Amino acid sequence: MIKKILIANRGEIALRIVRACRELGIKTLAVYSEADVQSLHVQLADEAICIGGPKGADSYLKADRIIAAAEIADVDAIHPGYGFLAENAKFAEQCESCNIKFIGPNAKVISMMGDKAIAKATVSKAGVPIVPGSDGPIESEAEAVKVARKIGYPVIIKAVAGGGGRGMRIAHNDVSFAKEFHVARNEAEKAFGNGSVYVEKYIEKPRHIEFQILADSHGKVLHLGERDCSIQRRHQKLIEEAPSPFITPDLRKKMGKAAVKAAAAAKYENAGTIEFLVDAKGNFYFIEMNTRIQVEHPVTEEVTGIDLIKQQIHVANGDKLEMSQGDITFTKHAIECRINAEDPARNFAPSPGTIGLYYSPGGHGVRVDSHAYSGYTIPPYYDSMIGKLICYGSNRKIALERTYRALNEFLVRGIKTTIPLHKAVLADPMFIEGKYTTAYMEDFLKRTPADLFA
Amino acid sequence: MIKKILIANRGEIALRIVRACRELGIKTLAVYSEADVQSLHVQLADEAICIGGPKGADSYLKADRIIAAAEIADVDAIHPGYGFLAENAKFAEQCESCNIKFIGPNAKVISMMGDKAIAKATVSKAGVPIVPGSDGPIESEAEAVKVARKIGYPVIIKAVAGGGGRGMRIAHNDVSFAKEFHVARNEAEKAFGNGSVYVEKYIEKPRHIEFQILADSHGKVLHLGERDCSIQRRHQKLIEEAPSPFITPDLRKKMGKAAVKAAAAAKYENAGTIEFLVDAKGNFYFIEMNTRIQVEHPVTEEVTGIDLIKQQIHVANGDKLEMSQGDITFTKHAIECRINAEDPARNFAPSPGTIGLYYSPGGHGVRVDSHAYSGYTIPPYYDSMIGKLICYGSNRKIALERTYRALNEFLVRGIKTTIPLHKAVLADPMFIEGKYTTAYMEDFLKRTPADLFA
Repeated sequence: MIKKILIANRGEIALRIVRACRELGIKTLAVYSEADVQSLHVQLADEAICIGGPKGADSYLKADRIIAAAEIADVDAIHPGYGFLAENAKFAEQCESCNIKFIGPNAKVISMMGDKAIAKATVSKAGVPIVPGSDGPIESEAEAVKVARKIGYPVIIKAVAGGGGRGMRIAHNDVSFAKEFHVARNEAEKAFGNGSVYVEKYIEKPRHIEFQILADSHGKVLHLGERDCSIQRRHQKLIEEAPSPFITPDLRKKMGKAAVKAAAAAKYENAGTIEFLVDAKGNFYFIEMNTRIQVEHPVTEEVTGIDLIKQQIHVANGDKLEMSQGDITFTKHAIECRINAEDPARNFAPSPGTIGLYYSPGGHGVRVDSHAYSGYTIPPYYDSMIGKLICYGSNRKIALERTYRALNEFLVRGIKTTIPLHKAVLADPMFIEGKYTTAYMEDFLKRTPADLFA
Repeated sequence: MIKKILIANRGEIALRIVRACRELGIKTLAVYSEADVQSLHVQLADEAICIGGPKGADSYLKADRIIAAAEIADVDAIHPGYGFLAENAKFAEQCESCNIKFIGPNAKVISMMGDKAIAKATVSKAGVPIVPGSDGPIESEAEAVKVARKIGYPVIIKAVAGGGGRGMRIAHNDVSFAKEFHVARNEAEKAFGNGSVYVEKYIEKPRHIEFQILADSHGKVLHLGERDCSIQRRHQKLIEEAPSPFITPDLRKKMGKAAVKAAAAAKYENAGTIEFLVDAKGNFYFIEMNTRIQVEHPVTEEVTGIDLIKQQIHVANGDKLEMSQGDITFTKHAIECRINAEDPARNFAPSPGTIGLYYSPGGHGVRVDSHAYSGYTIPPYYDSMIGKLICYGSNRKIALERTYRALNEFLVRGIKTTIPLHKAVLADPMFIEGKYTTAYMEDFLKRTPADLFA
């Protein structure tokens, strides 16, 4: 039985885990950096140990120190939250070898699903559609053109070592392909010292839809429905909702089955997320699995009524999942807005500093997960997210109205936040109609005067 | 169509009404006293008009000024909240005569149900059980003994003009009756200048159970289940929960039917509450009807998913209730704790003043309805309630654990509050087991050292 958990994280997710543990009667140990002394998760945990300097690399990423803290405080398990060491297979392995339960899948599964090529091959073998493409890097142009023709244009050429859009080029026909292939190789060589590229079907203006998975150590794998995470800026999610306004009950069933199949193929255990791209016709393609709790997990909690952090702990404890797929129903609609300490009107420049008055919205259908409070100083070292506003109601219309109302009463004085941007998006007819794709945010920012969300 | 509402109240309920209106796209006008300038409902309403001095009698009870404000701002309707003018038939009549919709039942119904004797007679005629007793005041001892014998001991002798426990005596047999009858008459004479008394069955250690009613102007009357409000101190409710841990599905059905019958007998319209006393055997007796929204309405909202303030507005608008009795299900458990600016360890002395740090608990299953914030100064003129914490989950156990966790993270620095008392009650086995009656709080305070909730 897990009786004491070390929380290897900070901010709202550390607080979220403290809350679940308190409700379960499990003791908590917070580890924190020198910059997080006044942080709420430190104050609310049963015990706290400082593990290093302000930078993540000196504290929350120091696996050895975290393990040492765990041993000093004699914890049974470590919850990694998201980010930092949450998808670090080596850390999971270290925990296991020290006989401390890592709350998540085992190191082998983290490692396997962390390698995109292996992950894709694994789920594809199980019959889950993946984005069609070359099986690996392609050296010759002639071979690459063949692959591109076979897949069908448009295609995207991606650097094997890539990231951040560099070494990424789109081609619409043979002629542009020949040109872009070389551009991509050169860019990749310059950016990563590795010119290897691969070719994939380019999904135009897709939806980013992910399915929440819950799997126990007794072979039961369930899905808890989807979250639509298409509202992103530079691949950073800003607003998430469940259910997706685009997904029909039929498609939900199909994608849910595929998600369960993918997780089962990985012999997955604990909470995880299967991410898909969905095109305008409803074709869906597995892109990756996140082997941890997601930032946006609360929308699923509000729609299903299931506490995901508690379930993670139960599963880690070896308990059987009590529900079956048929028990999981989606009777509500939930929307999450990420409140970041950024200035949306100035190209999302970080805005750390001290919060003056902080007023958290409340009332029916409003949930706030935040470690912020009046007088709290946001350290400049970490992620800019200072909270999440989750609003829900019996349908999407009510959830939208409630989100807008709650944003209007959310006060975070002294710093800039994404609240005004969320208000502008929530008032945008395209968003209200639910007609958006991953291209939405770029378009919205282009067509909307910045003073409307300053 | 109601397009603009004057909120004739203050504090958390005024904010609650602003929230519902915002979500419905209805404009709001706040009226406020000179002591409430910095109050959130004033800041968050679309418009605000100061109507007088700090004391309730100089502002929130000034019907004429409120009506004047309504006419100046051209509102369609007035929401009275609870307290102040909420059950003032004359005010409702004034609104009606000025062609302003009073959001509640009509003046005649308020007046009728406001008179306890008429209310009892009305529901009794409809077949709803009332506490057996003399039909009115009894002058002679001989007649009174006859009534007491007919009812069966124990009986309670109450002053007709009574209140606050004065002129109230309990008798267990003929001998003590003779003595107590005279004591009661003397006490009543001294306290109220009126020695008239009546006799009623004394319900020992009852539960205080109330049913939420929702009735439209088209004859549909529904109940939304019960709230157990037995946790009271000096007739002031402190903790409410839904459903009641004492009520069986069978009894719920019976009492729900009786509540609907009582409301129908009064030709009731809008939201209202039928209050019952329930004895240990499950016998229930109508005691009164509250013809307004109650402080504790959120527990019903969380258990049913129905927004009661929005329903009040819909009904006032003449809309038909969309749901039927069969649609109303109770799949959750919710507990409300009233956060009062009082010092429970010093006999609940009021503790107005300026709040230092205020941190409102959050996360899954936690709702806070409060107008307080860091730096807010609580005026000494009104009710001491500064907020309500409502926690809910799929069953009572989870709701209890969540309430305790949320109370632990609720910070209201600079003043004394009832938070430590709630924590002590939530940790008390008798409360956890759900085995409590209206006698609970007095007993709890007697047997618990005050430093446990200081």
